Amino acid sequence: MSNFRTIWTTEDQYVEVIDQTKLPHELVVVKLETYDDAEEAIKEMIVRGAPLIGATAAFGIYLAVREMIEEELEPSFLDKAFSDLRASRPTAVNLFWALDRMREALDNTDDFLKTSWETAKQIVEDDVETCRMIGVHGLPLIEEISKRKNGEKVNILTHCNAGMLGCVEWGTVTSPIYQAVQKGISVHVWVDETRPRNQGSNLTCYELTKHEVDHTLIVDNTGGHLMQHGMVDMVIVGTDRTTRQGDVANKIGTYLKALAAKDNQIPFYVALPSTTLDMSIRDGLKEIPIEERNQDEVRYVIGKSAAGKIESVLICPETTKAANYGFDVTPARLVTKIITDRGVCEANEEGIAKLFPEFEEK
Amino acid sequence: MSNFRTIWTTEDQYVEVIDQTKLPHELVVVKLETYDDAEEAIKEMIVRGAPLIGATAAFGIYLAVREMIEEELEPSFLDKAFSDLRASRPTAVNLFWALDRMREALDNTDDFLKTSWETAKQIVEDDVETCRMIGVHGLPLIEEISKRKNGEKVNILTHCNAGMLGCVEWGTVTSPIYQAVQKGISVHVWVDETRPRNQGSNLTCYELTKHEVDHTLIVDNTGGHLMQHGMVDMVIVGTDRTTRQGDVANKIGTYLKALAAKDNQIPFYVALPSTTLDMSIRDGLKEIPIEERNQDEVRYVIGKSAAGKIESVLICPETTKAANYGFDVTPARLVTKIITDRGVCEANEEGIAKLFPEFEEK
Repeated sequence: MSNFRTIWTTEDQYVEVIDQTKLPHELVVVKLETYDDAEEAIKEMIVRGAPLIGATAAFGIYLAVREMIEEELEPSFLDKAFSDLRASRPTAVNLFWALDRMREALDNTDDFLKTSWETAKQIVEDDVETCRMIGVHGLPLIEEISKRKNGEKVNILTHCNAGMLGCVEWGTVTSPIYQAVQKGISVHVWVDETRPRNQGSNLTCYELTKHEVDHTLIVDNTGGHLMQHGMVDMVIVGTDRTTRQGDVANKIGTYLKALAAKDNQIPFYVALPSTTLDMSIRDGLKEIPIEERNQDEVRYVIGKSAAGKIESVLICPETTKAANYGFDVTPARLVTKIITDRGVCEANEEGIAKLFPEFEEK
Repeated sequence: MSNFRTIWTTEDQYVEVIDQTKLPHELVVVKLETYDDAEEAIKEMIVRGAPLIGATAAFGIYLAVREMIEEELEPSFLDKAFSDLRASRPTAVNLFWALDRMREALDNTDDFLKTSWETAKQIVEDDVETCRMIGVHGLPLIEEISKRKNGEKVNILTHCNAGMLGCVEWGTVTSPIYQAVQKGISVHVWVDETRPRNQGSNLTCYELTKHEVDHTLIVDNTGGHLMQHGMVDMVIVGTDRTTRQGDVANKIGTYLKALAAKDNQIPFYVALPSTTLDMSIRDGLKEIPIEERNQDEVRYVIGKSAAGKIESVLICPETTKAANYGFDVTPARLVTKIITDRGVCEANEEGIAKLFPEFEEK
């Protein structure tokens, strides 16, 4: 799509990522040289987004292997790296998938360093192709609305950032959008701010600006009103984990937008790489653990001050406590369709099984 | 309830209000000496909340009368004051009600100064009593849940600030809450942040702190998740205008909470003084004008910096544009009951007409 990626390797075979906590105000690159660095990058959300978390964790394993070899550490060091990285974020299932893939590769090799390096790089390349394919399958949904509206602008609402910044390139939600724009379809994106961490205003607005996609920032409260007034043609969101019956864990607030879409007969799509499917569970509301994060993410907002400095400002009384749930679960009944790298399907067990028969065999 | 009010008169017969744009970080009092000051206070949201807007506009008329007399201006000056104040906020119907009451009083007197002063003061006193009565009627709804839960904490979710800060004393939503707390009922309030202007985190948290009511701040995205997990027993919100069929205009995002309450069988109450009823319209979605405000309220967040200064920070790329709708309309079908100063009723034409038969006669 462009030469712009979120994670890449360096000449001295380390890894670099964009520090997403500094966007959109500063473009800061962080070098990861130890698995601790990778764990920290995931925990502190220097990298975020299910696919990018997976890719970073994979490189975290490579870095642990390298440390183990260079510093002649015990194999238990590598085991600890696996378990620490696995615990770094509880909701995103790609993280576990990437770590399992790394484990399997290491179980079948004698050359740990080379294998971990190449497998991590392959995970990154696979993500690029997966996201591209999500766009290929999602594009016709946008095209169809564009045709129905006689080429008038298609208004797409999205929540959080399931863009290239959450992946490596293309993104999941943004892949059909970027491909539509490339095809000359007129598109406008309503970007939910996505409190508490503002991935919408900080990241989605940033990458849509970079790619010159027409967009408007709204607060998370606004989507319902827009839908009531015919100002949204479709909703597309990402997901951190989707169950075999099609329940979708995604950034907190997604469920509210799904309710509003249903109430106004607006299609609500979820874009996902197959690695986000968790076929081991059915009932998302009961079975997906929801990460609780630091209350200060709610109590403070980070932005650029008049003096051009990145500042954190308190938005409530000093003594007020806050609750900070990172995700919510949207029941499958509110999801119109799922857009995957393999095609579009119904958000139910049958639809998913048809597209991913290999999961049934497991 | 306490000696703490949001608007009061001074010895030299001017008016003072709390500058609510500075809360919760600074308690700043602003003196209103001209009708321009009052208009500015409403427009800039130094005062906000439907009842307080009405009270401020009423004093604005008194100030215009005083200016007219002191400066020997033409009567057209007063007409201009009426029309300017009427245009200061488009959604809140109390504003029109208060101005109509002032007009009627002035139409029936020769002593403009005395009448406008006393009528404005009466509007303020009436609001205190109205809000107290909303509490009297709303309290049993909280008590009932408390009993059902065997005295366990009643979890109430609210959006925006329909507290004493939006009124004079007691508030609308907060009146039953304060009265429940006074009665020793265990209550906990989930406070929606309420972007873009953060009236929840700034104002509701402030007044609940002042009155020692247990509360937790959440982002606007969180309510649905809490409701899905049985962590909300009831929702109570205010309103800026309610139609004769019970459609409710309130702060943007209210509709999303109403959808979530419905989806999880949680009662959704709207607390309102009868002055907020607009019997001239039925269909809220079609007929209530929704104020669009400056996009910078979305693009920037105001809070207290580490250095203790009130700062405004940019949360998106410099070039990103934003849309800022102030209110949305919750259809009556999503409202469980309306809590008024005259009692509790169904959110439909029949229910409202039974409680307010005098409106039918008009």
